[in-house]
Amino acid sequence: MAMKKLIILFLVTVSVWSINAQELSSPDGDLKMKFSLIENGSPAYQLFFKDKLVIKSSKLGLELVNDKKSLLDDFTIADSEVDSYNQTWKPVWGEVSEITNHYNELAITLQQNETDRIMIVRFRLFNDGLGFRYEFPQQKNLNYFTIKEEHTQFAMTGDHTAFWIPGDYDSQEYDYTESKLSEIRGLFDKALTDNASQEQFSKTGVQTALMMKTDEDLYINLHEAALIDYSLMNLNLDDQKFVFESWLTPDAQGNKGYLQAPCTSPWRTIMVSDKAEDILASPMILNLNEPCKIEDTSWIKPMKYVGVWWEMITGKSSWSYTNDFPAVKLGETDYENATPNGTHGATTEHVKEYIDFAAKHGFDGVLVEGWNEGWEDWFGQSKDYVFDFVSPYPDFDVEEIHEYAKSKGVKMIMHHETSSAVRNYERHLDTAYQFMKKYDYPAVKSGYVGDILPRGEHHYSQWIVNHYQYAVEKAAQYQIMVNAHEAVRPTGICRTYPNLIGNESARGTEFQAFGGSKPNHVTVLPFTRLLGGPMDYTPGIFEMDISKLNPNNNSHVNATIANQLALYVTMYSPLQMAADLPENYNRFPDAFQFIKDVAVDWDDSNYIEAEPGRYITIARKAKGTNDWFVGNVNGVEKRTSEISLDFLEQGKKYKATIYADAKNAHYKTNPQAYSITTKKVTHKSKLKLESAPGGGYAISIIEIK
Amino acid sequence: MAMKKLIILFLVTVSVWSINAQELSSPDGDLKMKFSLIENGSPAYQLFFKDKLVIKSSKLGLELVNDKKSLLDDFTIADSEVDSYNQTWKPVWGEVSEITNHYNELAITLQQNETDRIMIVRFRLFNDGLGFRYEFPQQKNLNYFTIKEEHTQFAMTGDHTAFWIPGDYDSQEYDYTESKLSEIRGLFDKALTDNASQEQFSKTGVQTALMMKTDEDLYINLHEAALIDYSLMNLNLDDQKFVFESWLTPDAQGNKGYLQAPCTSPWRTIMVSDKAEDILASPMILNLNEPCKIEDTSWIKPMKYVGVWWEMITGKSSWSYTNDFPAVKLGETDYENATPNGTHGATTEHVKEYIDFAAKHGFDGVLVEGWNEGWEDWFGQSKDYVFDFVSPYPDFDVEEIHEYAKSKGVKMIMHHETSSAVRNYERHLDTAYQFMKKYDYPAVKSGYVGDILPRGEHHYSQWIVNHYQYAVEKAAQYQIMVNAHEAVRPTGICRTYPNLIGNESARGTEFQAFGGSKPNHVTVLPFTRLLGGPMDYTPGIFEMDISKLNPNNNSHVNATIANQLALYVTMYSPLQMAADLPENYNRFPDAFQFIKDVAVDWDDSNYIEAEPGRYITIARKAKGTNDWFVGNVNGVEKRTSEISLDFLEQGKKYKATIYADAKNAHYKTNPQAYSITTKKVTHKSKLKLESAPGGGYAISIIEIK
Repeated sequence: MAMKKLIILFLVTVSVWSINAQELSSPDGDLKMKFSLIENGSPAYQLFFKDKLVIKSSKLGLELVNDKKSLLDDFTIADSEVDSYNQTWKPVWGEVSEITNHYNELAITLQQNETDRIMIVRFRLFNDGLGFRYEFPQQKNLNYFTIKEEHTQFAMTGDHTAFWIPGDYDSQEYDYTESKLSEIRGLFDKALTDNASQEQFSKTGVQTALMMKTDEDLYINLHEAALIDYSLMNLNLDDQKFVFESWLTPDAQGNKGYLQAPCTSPWRTIMVSDKAEDILASPMILNLNEPCKIEDTSWIKPMKYVGVWWEMITGKSSWSYTNDFPAVKLGETDYENATPNGTHGATTEHVKEYIDFAAKHGFDGVLVEGWNEGWEDWFGQSKDYVFDFVSPYPDFDVEEIHEYAKSKGVKMIMHHETSSAVRNYERHLDTAYQFMKKYDYPAVKSGYVGDILPRGEHHYSQWIVNHYQYAVEKAAQYQIMVNAHEAVRPTGICRTYPNLIGNESARGTEFQAFGGSKPNHVTVLPFTRLLGGPMDYTPGIFEMDISKLNPNNNSHVNATIANQLALYVTMYSPLQMAADLPENYNRFPDAFQFIKDVAVDWDDSNYIEAEPGRYITIARKAKGTNDWFVGNVNGVEKRTSEISLDFLEQGKKYKATIYADAKNAHYKTNPQAYSITTKKVTHKSKLKLESAPGGGYAISIIEIK
Repeated sequence: MAMKKLIILFLVTVSVWSINAQELSSPDGDLKMKFSLIENGSPAYQLFFKDKLVIKSSKLGLELVNDKKSLLDDFTIADSEVDSYNQTWKPVWGEVSEITNHYNELAITLQQNETDRIMIVRFRLFNDGLGFRYEFPQQKNLNYFTIKEEHTQFAMTGDHTAFWIPGDYDSQEYDYTESKLSEIRGLFDKALTDNASQEQFSKTGVQTALMMKTDEDLYINLHEAALIDYSLMNLNLDDQKFVFESWLTPDAQGNKGYLQAPCTSPWRTIMVSDKAEDILASPMILNLNEPCKIEDTSWIKPMKYVGVWWEMITGKSSWSYTNDFPAVKLGETDYENATPNGTHGATTEHVKEYIDFAAKHGFDGVLVEGWNEGWEDWFGQSKDYVFDFVSPYPDFDVEEIHEYAKSKGVKMIMHHETSSAVRNYERHLDTAYQFMKKYDYPAVKSGYVGDILPRGEHHYSQWIVNHYQYAVEKAAQYQIMVNAHEAVRPTGICRTYPNLIGNESARGTEFQAFGGSKPNHVTVLPFTRLLGGPMDYTPGIFEMDISKLNPNNNSHVNATIANQLALYVTMYSPLQMAADLPENYNRFPDAFQFIKDVAVDWDDSNYIEAEPGRYITIARKAKGTNDWFVGNVNGVEKRTSEISLDFLEQGKKYKATIYADAKNAHYKTNPQAYSITTKKVTHKSKLKLESAPGGGYAISIIEIK
């Protein structure tokens, strides 16, 4: 009887799907999307890969506040339009110099019977995946509406393996956990680490980009693109049915977004491939964003930099200038007559040492943190007027440093820690950016450590997402590049505003000094965090034993030197830091040579081999040259990597310098053991290299002219 | 047995009070304050007037968030310092040209035993009343602290009569209710009227300034002074014991303030007199504020103005330009090609008519509302990017109007309705002020209609009080005067920032077009709202039957013309509007003459007679002249006013023009009936005048040279 019911239910569902179904195929036909109205006129979609169901029937729609009907059901299909698009475009900087944007599109106009409201769902199906978004055209019966929750489902076909971090309204700085979907609930609490600002919402809540692998070795990745004036989407898993549902970030009142038609939601993206490398290679997130809005982009330049930073992160130095006061007030605290604490990192003398080091080794820039008044009580206090971004400490001579850097051909990189006092930052933004222009700082690293002010808002609410965008757009007016830490994770907006040259917005290298990260962390990040944009991961640590920098800090960097070198290739970023102290580079000048040689901008990228959580090997062609750089980062298992150099140009000869783990290297017990070999290679060459646990290798392949 | 217990309790209390009591007297000795630590080391004060208890033992202190101890008890007196002060100072504008600041001060340093924290309570006792505040000096054990609630008590000695409006976090735009304290609860709901933004907290919550009269004919007034970077104080009444307690305005999270030592609270003020006129005359609120912080004040000038405003308030015209769109988006909506709705008030032509009218009749300025893009959906939508303050409508030629006004010697007054989108206003503040400077607008009327954005904040929370201050201080940098409507009620900050030339922040004349206000409303406001600063009440309505302006609006202005004229004297403001339409003034040119003649700045003021809710008669001396202007506003009972002109200078002769209610005038049935008589007067003259219900009289007394 039950079976009979099931059969009937199945047949009814299938027939409902068949009657209403609208179909869309990817250009190569491998992906198929089916859209239909199911019970009560609810919109739903399915996704197939090579004729196998990948996403089961998943509902769509928005639940509204103070609205009897919401936008979930009672729809009919008023119209549907298909379209195709196939163009190439050139990013200002990137992993490749030219990107193909090729998709088939289906835009379905839904009309709600009771309310006469229109909602369009636009699907774009690429060879690498599906993107779709909600659109609300200008119309009589829908103007202003408030989102209670978005109910976009992603129904998985089984208990896939996932690489996840806990869903959170304020932080992404967690180590990844690899587990079955069914195991998330039990592992959730263990996956949490303390943070200056964090708030979870569900024991099965996770963040995007969510990387998954099915038992049939299919790779599926869920994310979003073009998050503009909307609340960030986390995912909440129904771990009985393995259905993910969108869970937006609330504001101070618990509402999840305020919309005014005409408007669109961000794109919800589903990448699918039987090859993990395709996920890394996919430009889908960028392709779903608007083209570049900046006319003259000549001032946007990738940079390699060093900085006064790691010494503070490790606790060797302090950001603060003095220990005289329990708390400070800008404009009232007498810094001039305060006693210097003797541990202040950002002094004129010390900064000049970094400028010298940068000039000597060909680095573009020097970042300095702790240069400005206010660091004595900069976080944990919910402080409003915490910094003014223009008042240097008495021992930081901004003029002298400006002149010195200029004389050495080195650029200074500004630091704006906001302590999440967002209104305070906006009040000072113009004068802060003007200060940068005056002293020739082309780029700023901004930070949002601590709970957001206005209090009650979250780092990823619509209100604050709007702020990050405001800061980037205003920076573009000033021709300033922005690298925003602790901000919302990127969703491809760097296509539209390429002055957004980086974010942190994930667990970066600093956590190696806060207790360490998992040694395979960097084999996951490119599948997750980096899908939406580059990460200022700040690699290049050579001294793994942090107690050598600060005896009170027993943290260990869970990587080998070879792994750290490889990151300059595998952790794509137009902004790359050599994060360690000069003295540690001076101890290993031969290894350091790779960091000096590696490019930060690319004509082409080849994703040779990759497995999330296990290994990534990438080769990239330095922009405007015939030189290539290869990087491999390895997980916890020792591994042999066999790669072909067939991406090299036929007929050319190259000198390859291979920086590899020594035979007995190990991220924990022997991280500084590496070997450097050189050999001549051509496109016919093959390499077989061993990567240690938490290790890897880096190769520079320079054309022999 | 009970009696014995009571006696013992009394004796203990008295002895506790006697042992610890610190005393302070006013300069003339009439007021005495006693401070003591009562049970558990709780600080408390009492106030005596002419040896009679006026404020019973009232506790002091702050309850803190996440603090085991709070700052309520367990204190000992570590120190106490007395001081005296007696100086005069000159305000930039005011009711008088010189103000005496004379008080005796007692600063008590309290040390909390368990925590070793210091809290100072500073008392200043003037002849007109008591002011006190909390101070937190820089100290080791108290840096950052969050207020859960302030617990400042004002214990009344009996069931006084009060003139009150419901306590509210977002609006003061209520009619006053006159009742016993015990009746507040039962009358609370009835006292509420709808508002675009409002939230009450208690059925016995009331706002300050709270005017009271005891059964012994003593006048008591509770308010605060110098509300800077703190949450606004409402009062919550325990209507069993008749004890008021401070009730601060919460932020989005329910917290009531964030403090960082060193800091102070605002002053809590208690005015006491057996003469109602003393309350009106008291400069205590101003005296408790910091001296003027603006160096060059030459650009701060009182103004008399007309404007394109009343026609929109009555519904005769519209702020909006077009009816084509259900909603608009700045920068996207095509205003240029939209159909003008034909009802737009702020057109170039119409504004020029106002400029002509102003020039003809000697007015300083013309205010124009509805000049800028965005009014089509300006409120009720929780809209973020609602105005940009720099984009005129197609039919408002800002350049042409600028030239025309200049040619006529008339200043334009800017309008910044923010729709309470406070972040949006701050983002545009600099460019908005620069736009004003460019087109020579010396003053701006700002507005905060609707619920505050960031959402969850209130109009009177610390976060938003901080904003109003920010806007005023930035305006001072631009040499711009500010008249902020719907902002927090003033607390004397105009002494420190005299470019804050006005606020509305109470139920103004516009409500006469929204259904009418009580006819005695204007006999209460000077005892309440005006204590903290002038009110842009925008008087001068001559046509009381609003249906004559807009047939769809049956509202009636509950005042006579003579009453409206008197307001220019009784409702002190350096910014005075002749609010009605020119055509209505043209119908009564003889009455209008008073508005043309009356001054807006004063050398001296004489509070001849006053009774809250009944009548107010004031005489003021026009600055730099020997001319006087007298105004009387009357409540609902017909009344004869007998006044002496002994404030006139001996030996001088004057021509008095008396604008009085006609014999049968009545605010409801015959509001436009007035008589004008002239007579010669001297300082020996006496006048006997009859004021109608809701009526009054106005007199210009011009020196005969």
